[in-house]
Amino acid sequence: MLGSYRIRTDLALEATERFTEENVEIHGVEIQEKYDKEKDVSISVVRITTENGARAMGRPQGTYITMEAPNLSIPDEDYHREISQEIAVHLRRLIGLDREKSILVVGLGNPAVTADSLGPRVVENLRMTRHVIREYGLCGIGEEKMHRTSGIAPGVMAQTGMETSEIIQGIVAETQPDVVVAVDSLAARSVRRLSRTIQITDTGIHPGSGVGNHRIGLTEENLQVKVIGIGVPTVVDAATIVRDSMSHLLDVLDEAEQKEFLEEMVPPGLHSMFVTPKDVDETVKYLSFTISEGLNLAFSEV
Amino acid sequence: MLGSYRIRTDLALEATERFTEENVEIHGVEIQEKYDKEKDVSISVVRITTENGARAMGRPQGTYITMEAPNLSIPDEDYHREISQEIAVHLRRLIGLDREKSILVVGLGNPAVTADSLGPRVVENLRMTRHVIREYGLCGIGEEKMHRTSGIAPGVMAQTGMETSEIIQGIVAETQPDVVVAVDSLAARSVRRLSRTIQITDTGIHPGSGVGNHRIGLTEENLQVKVIGIGVPTVVDAATIVRDSMSHLLDVLDEAEQKEFLEEMVPPGLHSMFVTPKDVDETVKYLSFTISEGLNLAFSEV
Amino acid sequence: MLGSYRIRTDLALEATERFTEENVEIHGVEIQEKYDKEKDVSISVVRITTENGARAMGRPQGTYITMEAPNLSIPDEDYHREISQEIAVHLRRLIGLDREKSILVVGLGNPAVTADSLGPRVVENLRMTRHVIREYGLCGIGEEKMHRTSGIAPGVMAQTGMETSEIIQGIVAETQPDVVVAVDSLAARSVRRLSRTIQITDTGIHPGSGVGNHRIGLTEENLQVKVIGIGVPTVVDAATIVRDSMSHLLDVLDEAEQKEFLEEMVPPGLHSMFVTPKDVDETVKYLSFTISEGLNLAFSEV
Amino acid sequence: MLGSYRIRTDLALEATERFTEENVEIHGVEIQEKYDKEKDVSISVVRITTENGARAMGRPQGTYITMEAPNLSIPDEDYHREISQEIAVHLRRLIGLDREKSILVVGLGNPAVTADSLGPRVVENLRMTRHVIREYGLCGIGEEKMHRTSGIAPGVMAQTGMETSEIIQGIVAETQPDVVVAVDSLAARSVRRLSRTIQITDTGIHPGSGVGNHRIGLTEENLQVKVIGIGVPTVVDAATIVRDSMSHLLDVLDEAEQKEFLEEMVPPGLHSMFVTPKDVDETVKYLSFTISEGLNLAFSEV
Repeated sequence: MLGSYRIRTDLALEATERFTEENVEIHGVEIQEKYDKEKDVSISVVRITTENGARAMGRPQGTYITMEAPNLSIPDEDYHREISQEIAVHLRRLIGLDREKSILVVGLGNPAVTADSLGPRVVENLRMTRHVIREYGLCGIGEEKMHRTSGIAPGVMAQTGMETSEIIQGIVAETQPDVVVAVDSLAARSVRRLSRTIQITDTGIHPGSGVGNHRIGLTEENLQVKVIGIGVPTVVDAATIVRDSMSHLLDVLDEAEQKEFLEEMVPPGLHSMFVTPKDVDETVKYLSFTISEGLNLAFSEV
Repeated sequence: MLGSYRIRTDLALEATERFTEENVEIHGVEIQEKYDKEKDVSISVVRITTENGARAMGRPQGTYITMEAPNLSIPDEDYHREISQEIAVHLRRLIGLDREKSILVVGLGNPAVTADSLGPRVVENLRMTRHVIREYGLCGIGEEKMHRTSGIAPGVMAQTGMETSEIIQGIVAETQPDVVVAVDSLAARSVRRLSRTIQITDTGIHPGSGVGNHRIGLTEENLQVKVIGIGVPTVVDAATIVRDSMSHLLDVLDEAEQKEFLEEMVPPGLHSMFVTPKDVDETVKYLSFTISEGLNLAFSEV
Repeated sequence: MLGSYRIRTDLALEATERFTEENVEIHGVEIQEKYDKEKDVSISVVRITTENGARAMGRPQGTYITMEAPNLSIPDEDYHREISQEIAVHLRRLIGLDREKSILVVGLGNPAVTADSLGPRVVENLRMTRHVIREYGLCGIGEEKMHRTSGIAPGVMAQTGMETSEIIQGIVAETQPDVVVAVDSLAARSVRRLSRTIQITDTGIHPGSGVGNHRIGLTEENLQVKVIGIGVPTVVDAATIVRDSMSHLLDVLDEAEQKEFLEEMVPPGLHSMFVTPKDVDETVKYLSFTISEGLNLAFSEV
Repeated sequence: MLGSYRIRTDLALEATERFTEENVEIHGVEIQEKYDKEKDVSISVVRITTENGARAMGRPQGTYITMEAPNLSIPDEDYHREISQEIAVHLRRLIGLDREKSILVVGLGNPAVTADSLGPRVVENLRMTRHVIREYGLCGIGEEKMHRTSGIAPGVMAQTGMETSEIIQGIVAETQPDVVVAVDSLAARSVRRLSRTIQITDTGIHPGSGVGNHRIGLTEENLQVKVIGIGVPTVVDAATIVRDSMSHLLDVLDEAEQKEFLEEMVPPGLHSMFVTPKDVDETVKYLSFTISEGLNLAFSEV
């Protein structure tokens, strides 16, 4: 750990690592882990339940579910349906999908930058029902109960001239969904997490997260409806890579020296750069299938 | 003309044709035409000024400017800058761009269907300024006056589960632009118009127009701000093609016979089909450059 | 039937219709049909076995398999795996995939025109193995036997300045596959066939077929290796629509009168136009999943 | 400099830097530099004329032209036509375009990975003439002399199962161009070069270069025709970033210690990663316009 230097990560699991490594227990943070050997999937649930826990973890109170599977970005016959099913189970629980709901799915990120295009790609493969129900009614389509799904990929600020939060606030105010599900590409602290991790949280999307650094979050506070965030780490901050590589080198220095040293070391241009795998196109493609199938499964039954 | 059969066209110019052919003058409809021989560009301005004119023309009161140039979809060195300049002149006049304005450009249509992707493509090539001005202020970017531009391509209802008008109403309510400029692919009555015509109107976008048949319009009435519509015909209704081809064949029949005959003739599936040129990809690409350059020119100066 | 007027169709099944309607049997043409009620899939196999049959049918000797399923373009949970399996069975038989083969899949058509983008999209979702086997050997990847798959979407002549057949001839000469599988968007005679029909043939792709009208075919004669063609009708010729709609109107005329009449009737621009459904983006997307899965299944086992 | 560690760079200019910094002159390497103050464009020409020079520079004998302009990726009204014109001048000289030539442009790289999509995007905006001349003849299109241009974006090995060099060798053998112009995304050593540098060379494209690491080059030796390479650095190797940041830290160590130290330091996953700017989509878009316009200018006159 680099003293007061914040290593940027959007993954709650990574934030817990330093505590678990040091075998420290924090009041207000509960961690549950389970490993399915047959499917080779680890699922950890981190619950931050107090202000103290939130401070220690550097993120808001709420539930953070992380799924890890080493072969997540390698396509099998049905694009990891076992993971899609896990996503569906957790989503149904977090949203309360045993009662009819109206859900707006927001695909965050820049569709023109591969590493940031996961959200838009997930929305592309969703089955929307809201307009059909509005036009024909449930009777008209032969259903008794059905969730109303809608979705949009709003693009990023450089393309729209608007904050994503402004666009979504407007659409939420106009179409009145019960819940927003926001899908985003995340930044991990470590290259090890890339392409094998999915995080689901009921705390929404926070400022400074994602590839493109949202400046205003998508949270219940801003949107006045519950916000579920689903994220997959697809990049690591370029500056983080450099700092991380040098970390044990810096053990000999005190905090002030570390800070001075790093300021010299990390080239200024690096702060608008990210690190991503060469096959990020395949990762994003296959993971978007797995996630959209998870959402379709979750929303297909009341 | 096929009696009471409405030949679907989004072009005001085509609606005037039967009157001008028959040399009829209509109260409440003014038509001005000019032809620039050097540039080979025709510009017609149709003004519908009364209720009577609106009824006769089958479209709302307002101004409809149509530019025609035979080589519009054949790229020259600067993608028909002369047309971009004409677009800019007319837009500046219709919007009143001699005073600072905040403009939201909406790229209507389905980016995944080539013939319907003009609007989204135009938005892609616009220079957005709203977010920059909001972040740094005019001083910060060294300008005294500047229009604030923003834009979005909301997709179509089958993709979003929402009416386009709902999305845009929400965004307009949240971001408060002075004017909306909506760019759309249109349906022409005749294949002759395709790929060589641009229509600009201050009456917005009306239900039933475009490739995808908007069900609710984007109009000042709906959005509470002025709406300029810019459209390029890229398709002809499949049913229109059949009716048109048979029109002089039907002269011998009376109106009721015509109607019966046509109902038999036009296969039912045809109503969800459109006719489009094989090189529609190039047409849409080059026209989107010409139009986005026109918008960039119009918005670049106060 | 419009006398000597050739109604353009790339579907052998449509060419047989006039014979089956009139209950005529042709020497050298065998037709087998089977209907799977449970899956609601019809499969017809047309075998043209003699010169006479080829002349009567207006297409080369060989086998033409047509699958029809009314809901083919409506996605179900696994994108019509039952159809993918049928495709795999027929492909394995036509190619002889019980022995190791090297297969080059060619995605014909223009990726920038939705109705013509089926071929490129199918290639995008294939699992390629040729380069892996060449680099690591079969032992290296833990297999005993494996088909070597490669693929390319060469684009269309307006984009490349080259005939597609030139590009493919060059690649075939250099990489020496045992067989070429060419996937293409087809023109049907009737809107009824669109989005619900898949044709597989061992006669390759012929000049004048497809949306973009190949000028030189991809056939065993040209490429010196066996060529399997897989096609899905996504468009109808615009001129065909007009002729078809008028067909029974023309019964009263003799052939010369018909010809004269039609020449007048069909606007000249119409010959470079096609008719396609408004939701062609979804059709092409889902059908490309079904077909690529069929190919992946066929090639996954020796 | 990290001792024997090869800092990966595709830019000849970067390879010369250590010599110019140390004020060393190398036999067999000539460097010319010119700076156009008005346009703010620097152009350097490196000529490697002997075996010795090639060894010292770590790249083949030939000419390497580098253009640098700080605002290259910021669009102005005509997408930096002054740079397009410079490209055209150098290309015309390297190819000998004062006599009619047949030119095949190859857009290397993966169109699905933004940072690697420059080549495919350049090909998309070229005017192809070869097929028109073949069909209508020069007389038919009213020209006396004209270059024949063709082009292709072959994709990358993971998508095709074929080496890019195999595909291009096949096409060259079949279509017999006089010269190949290959456009590629490059790796720079320093983030400073990204988005502001264009390199043109008559030595082709070499193994190990580019984002995707070509394994076999596109060179005159392989293709039997002259190969011009045009490249823009869009990424930096992730491992290079780490090494570079630590370089002056390592001055105290001897070469063996440095090597050991670095092997420990650079996480193994990093070797399949690259660093790229967050706005790489805009950079690639605008630079592809500038380069394709340069090519169109170069090829438009004999």
